[in-house]
Amino acid sequence: MELFERLLKGDLRAAGRLMSRAEAGAVEVRPTLGKIYKAAGKGHIVGLTGVPGSGKSTLVSKLVEAIREDGRKVGVIAIDPSSPFSGGSILGDRIRMSNLAMDDGVYIRSMATRGSTGGLARSALAAVDILDAAGFDIIIIETVGVGQDEVEIARASHSVLVVSAPGLGDDVQAIKAGILEIADIHVVSKCDRADANRTITDLKTMLAMGITVSMKNMNDKPLWQVPVVGTSSETGEGIRSLLETIDRHRDVHRSSALGPQRLRRIAEYRTFKTAEDLLRGRFFASTSERVAAMVERISRRELDPFTASDELMSNVAL
Amino acid sequence: MELFERLLKGDLRAAGRLMSRAEAGAVEVRPTLGKIYKAAGKGHIVGLTGVPGSGKSTLVSKLVEAIREDGRKVGVIAIDPSSPFSGGSILGDRIRMSNLAMDDGVYIRSMATRGSTGGLARSALAAVDILDAAGFDIIIIETVGVGQDEVEIARASHSVLVVSAPGLGDDVQAIKAGILEIADIHVVSKCDRADANRTITDLKTMLAMGITVSMKNMNDKPLWQVPVVGTSSETGEGIRSLLETIDRHRDVHRSSALGPQRLRRIAEYRTFKTAEDLLRGRFFASTSERVAAMVERISRRELDPFTASDELMSNVAL
Repeated sequence: MELFERLLKGDLRAAGRLMSRAEAGAVEVRPTLGKIYKAAGKGHIVGLTGVPGSGKSTLVSKLVEAIREDGRKVGVIAIDPSSPFSGGSILGDRIRMSNLAMDDGVYIRSMATRGSTGGLARSALAAVDILDAAGFDIIIIETVGVGQDEVEIARASHSVLVVSAPGLGDDVQAIKAGILEIADIHVVSKCDRADANRTITDLKTMLAMGITVSMKNMNDKPLWQVPVVGTSSETGEGIRSLLETIDRHRDVHRSSALGPQRLRRIAEYRTFKTAEDLLRGRFFASTSERVAAMVERISRRELDPFTASDELMSNVAL
Repeated sequence: MELFERLLKGDLRAAGRLMSRAEAGAVEVRPTLGKIYKAAGKGHIVGLTGVPGSGKSTLVSKLVEAIREDGRKVGVIAIDPSSPFSGGSILGDRIRMSNLAMDDGVYIRSMATRGSTGGLARSALAAVDILDAAGFDIIIIETVGVGQDEVEIARASHSVLVVSAPGLGDDVQAIKAGILEIADIHVVSKCDRADANRTITDLKTMLAMGITVSMKNMNDKPLWQVPVVGTSSETGEGIRSLLETIDRHRDVHRSSALGPQRLRRIAEYRTFKTAEDLLRGRFFASTSERVAAMVERISRRELDPFTASDELMSNVAL
């Protein structure tokens, strides 16, 4: 049986092999990924991001446990270099979620950002589609909230969670400023700490001052108010409540105008990223003497990259 | 007089206006940026990156002072969200390098990563060209060492500095692993701290174990051995020595086979990024009904992004 058919039956080995192929970036896998894309769309995609040290990955493992308690299937794509999941792939599989390792209803895939040049969005979003098509109910995509690509990938989801934590340094706080506004749900982790209340209050104040709702229904009521949920991976506090909030956002996403709007934005992003990926592949694999001569002349500053790329892209139909 | 001519005479107001235009990403500015690219190429470009908390930005300000003591002109492009320079643009110009604020031989430009979708490399590298064409001797491009784009931008320089610091958390250390190998020069900041020696020893051990030199000369001697330089922004220790090391790397870069090899890699990267930028601009600005219908069908999963982008890119000449 073909990998694609096996995937649709929920075969996790087929899922893993397809992810590896997607990650390798071979052109041949694209038609299969296309079929998988069309077969997917049932799962709920949760983007989870936050600064280094915010406790994202411990939170994810607690969330996975709560989702499993409901009997729902959950997948995790971790592209956070500080995550134990992706950290495993970087640091040599040192850390594993042992209590979930033998559970067929959980699938964890880590992706190293190290050395990957540009293929991050491609691999990560293909992996989400693969788990979606394999019948996973919730797919969490965990990225570190620093870096343009990383933040964009987290945004390509149905519910965006931004994780904050009390007591981080000033430079980390500055990074945080850039990602707060993308949240559908704010999570304040490490709520067992005394200073967590301050972080929650700060976020609520920020939300009260800003424009927190972008779309209203016909009665002019906001469709979604961005909530702040406190959690503690230490005590388990708030984890269940966070899952309920995610489910509530999923319901609003599915039943209101928020959903189609979001889905169009994601589709636009994915179309562009896929085209970009094609451009990258063709450019760096190009054996054309014309391209090589072009690069050589640019390196000598005899030609500029703007004129060169105008020429390269002159026939693109957009 | 045209902005371009004013720039070549070293007019910093012209430089600032050209950077703003490059950042805005208008298509009209591309021919001028092309001319600037060809006029540039004399300055030495230093890429400086490191994890959050490594003390990059304080180090940069000390380095700027040392370069000015020599009477050389120095520009800084800061796209680190935790930098006081770019932090200024994000957090509202709160912090400024006051003692250098009135000095014509220093130019600092900060770029917010926040809200920028993909144009980071374009704006940053155009700004480097602009300062180069305006006659700056050294241009430092400071990025946070997290995020694919950010690391790639730092690599698009003649000398790559990776800044480490003692006493950072485990999750930050994990991020660091991904950027250590891109260094031409390792810097260990905060050397006034007792635990800094350990960081220096660790880096030296890592370098001794790994393949640290990629190219040798005809006598089979390594062209460049990656050094580890300790600095303290507190005491000023090591700053002068770091600048000497940068100058030494510049000389090797300019006189050996390392230079042309590096310049070709940078040219290749820039050509691709410029083409990608053109694709992005055209795609998101497209008013074609065909593209809109395509995105709509992809959002409904009736069409997949792979088939769609194959069609969009079918005429690209590569």
